[in-house]
Amino acid sequence: MKKYAIIVAGGSGRRMQPGMPKQFLILEGLPVLMHTMRVFYLTGTEEVRLILVLPHDHTGTWRDLCLQHSFAIDHLVVEGGETRFHSVKNGLEKTEGDSLVAVHDGVRPLVAPRVIENAFTIAGSRGTAIPAVPVNESVRMQDKNSSRSIDRKNVRIVQTPQVFRSSILKKAYEQEYRGEFTDDASVVEAAGFAIHLIEGNVENIKITRKIDLDIAASLMG
Amino acid sequence: MKKYAIIVAGGSGRRMQPGMPKQFLILEGLPVLMHTMRVFYLTGTEEVRLILVLPHDHTGTWRDLCLQHSFAIDHLVVEGGETRFHSVKNGLEKTEGDSLVAVHDGVRPLVAPRVIENAFTIAGSRGTAIPAVPVNESVRMQDKNSSRSIDRKNVRIVQTPQVFRSSILKKAYEQEYRGEFTDDASVVEAAGFAIHLIEGNVENIKITRKIDLDIAASLMG
Repeated sequence: MKKYAIIVAGGSGRRMQPGMPKQFLILEGLPVLMHTMRVFYLTGTEEVRLILVLPHDHTGTWRDLCLQHSFAIDHLVVEGGETRFHSVKNGLEKTEGDSLVAVHDGVRPLVAPRVIENAFTIAGSRGTAIPAVPVNESVRMQDKNSSRSIDRKNVRIVQTPQVFRSSILKKAYEQEYRGEFTDDASVVEAAGFAIHLIEGNVENIKITRKIDLDIAASLMG
Repeated sequence: MKKYAIIVAGGSGRRMQPGMPKQFLILEGLPVLMHTMRVFYLTGTEEVRLILVLPHDHTGTWRDLCLQHSFAIDHLVVEGGETRFHSVKNGLEKTEGDSLVAVHDGVRPLVAPRVIENAFTIAGSRGTAIPAVPVNESVRMQDKNSSRSIDRKNVRIVQTPQVFRSSILKKAYEQEYRGEFTDDASVVEAAGFAIHLIEGNVENIKITRKIDLDIAASLMG
């Protein structure tokens, strides 16, 4: 079965230095996004076709960075939409036939190859595969004036790549956009499919703050 | 009102190098635990009395480290119990009068001074103050064969120092130990008190794995 990875790099990075989206920041000599795409390129045996979803305003920067870093990994660039939901939908339109589709955050360069491989395998047999990690801290739900503990044994922090059989993902993305769609699993769940969790790798952090770049560098070290 | 901080350093560190408990590992030239105690020592204006709870087997190592690093911050050493619950209880017995008691993980050297100060202030007025941070990733609950999304807007990852009016904490620790007591807030909640969350600092990670030491070093940098 054909394999795709939709790499979502839609963030405008307003929380970090203005003007420079976080996926373009340099980590160990290379933009974060290139690290991310390399992991998919180098993973496993069968080719994963890369679809990179970028905001319109960033395509020029990306082209320049590719030249500057002699980045030669084959990929298709697709323009992002208004929200992450719309961006993924745009990427999904470029996939063909009955396939397995991974959706991955461009700012997660530290995903382990074994997690990618495992996610494709499990999604192939079960339809969905979502990497997640347990929390080693206590977890509470904030109520209006107080809070209550929830059993952390069953709590999982969700990561990407979230991998789906294409028929499932396409069906799910026919829904209207809703604010509570924080990731692809929530979209697919709302369409009535079971979400199967697999073991993620704890190093697979999302680079959203300046300090995450330093942490990522330590983790790569 | 008198202020105490019970620093819990009871972990045997079996997940890291055998024999060397993680609170004794060297971070930027100093054992993790000394960094942690220094933050409390240097915080705010009014003195915080430090009660360090250590497993019996580690008191000798601690004494040697204090000599070696000329560690001169005044503190009382108390022997730990079978679980964290029993260790905190042992520390609590050494507090006197109507006071404010912070319970803090020895392996959290990166707590911000402002969080400590705020926790004492809020606990003084409301009885409990628990630092917590939001999650910027999706969260799910693992069921037997599937999983379901939970609204991450209200999910909080709980940190320490957890600060309580001593009367509340002592009342709570009269309960029998239960397996679901993962932190002091859960003990106090089970005794019927409202748990008031305050804003923690995201850097305040728990050093439980080797890699956390590197991350902590980046965060201190």
